[in-house]
Amino acid sequence: MKIGIIGSGNMGRSLGILWAEQGHDVFFGARDLEKGKAVAEAGHGTKGGTNDEAAIFGDILLYTVRGVNPAEVFSSTEVLSGKILIDCNNFDIPEGFAFPPIVQSLAEKLAAEVPNALVVKAFNTMAQEVFELAPTPLKDYEVSVFVAGDDSQARQVVMSLAKDIGFAPVDCGALRNARMIEGVGDFIRFLLISQLQNPYTTISVNTLPPAQQQRLGGRQTSNLH
Amino acid sequence: MKIGIIGSGNMGRSLGILWAEQGHDVFFGARDLEKGKAVAEAGHGTKGGTNDEAAIFGDILLYTVRGVNPAEVFSSTEVLSGKILIDCNNFDIPEGFAFPPIVQSLAEKLAAEVPNALVVKAFNTMAQEVFELAPTPLKDYEVSVFVAGDDSQARQVVMSLAKDIGFAPVDCGALRNARMIEGVGDFIRFLLISQLQNPYTTISVNTLPPAQQQRLGGRQTSNLH
Repeated sequence: MKIGIIGSGNMGRSLGILWAEQGHDVFFGARDLEKGKAVAEAGHGTKGGTNDEAAIFGDILLYTVRGVNPAEVFSSTEVLSGKILIDCNNFDIPEGFAFPPIVQSLAEKLAAEVPNALVVKAFNTMAQEVFELAPTPLKDYEVSVFVAGDDSQARQVVMSLAKDIGFAPVDCGALRNARMIEGVGDFIRFLLISQLQNPYTTISVNTLPPAQQQRLGGRQTSNLH
Repeated sequence: MKIGIIGSGNMGRSLGILWAEQGHDVFFGARDLEKGKAVAEAGHGTKGGTNDEAAIFGDILLYTVRGVNPAEVFSSTEVLSGKILIDCNNFDIPEGFAFPPIVQSLAEKLAAEVPNALVVKAFNTMAQEVFELAPTPLKDYEVSVFVAGDDSQARQVVMSLAKDIGFAPVDCGALRNARMIEGVGDFIRFLLISQLQNPYTTISVNTLPPAQQQRLGGRQTSNLH
């Protein structure tokens, strides 16, 4: 697939290289043309240039520019029309990790700013360091990537891109659910930075093999309290 | 340890039996004396009776009565003085899993209602079915139990009780962080019921072994976006 990276910082560079290694065509965009080109020196057939060029190049775009309205990033948001736009961003971390309640997710805000794009939330619940482990041996860990977006086909594409580089994608349905996913992003950053102090902290959602018998006498229906 | 179960429904019964199996002294309390006694027929030296009796018996209490003010559960909230009060509750699930933002956690509300108790948030991020797998073979899965409370000693006690029955406790600091943990409780219920439709859905927080080398050129400091 043709992937454009919008803002080629740590997050964008890492994911872009990983996708390029898997045979995808990647274009690194940056506000500064020279920076985009410099990142593309990582090789694997990647190209680099401006954010406009990256957006025009890609069918799928990774939007790494936190909290910036696309109207300020591109010469015109028309370049995003019909594109799948992956939002991997989280809110700023407040003093003492005292995150305010999430009333509207960053992903929903982005979708409101560019209604002509297909916004998908993903890749906001792990630190860049984790990408160093992709795709092998990351596959062993089954690290979850939570994917939410209103277009189910766009969601499937992003889930497939997550799988390509060793993650275990989890379909999280509609874009509104990005509120929960961004809450998980806040939580994992709190654990990673404040509690466990380990950037390789990850979340895995697993479905365990069922019990052989209902030995504690529980009901058969799910009853998470 | 002496553990009182307040409200001996599915959640309370399962956890109570597991702790009793590990050699703890467990008293099942219920609004109805006869119900408490019936649950204690599970054996393992457990006792049963009223919620008042369970509170007086236990040094650590599991509060399974969702959204009910302790003033309505006990003859007097004085019975909770100095006790560790584990809140394992989650908000009701709204239509379409459209959870409202968490402005105050259930655990903080409970702590405000009984300032004489040491409230600890825990055990709200897995379905009762998962307890069927405890303690063996649950230990293999390293299922997280997130533990938050303002008293660090109380937190340690609850973490130790989680470990006893095969879970991997994660210290989440102050009680305010219950807001994040309850958000995770909402998220896992959404995944479990709506998306994966599997009550054995769990969350594990892992710290992966670090990469051998920084092959993607990332900074050495943590940079979760």
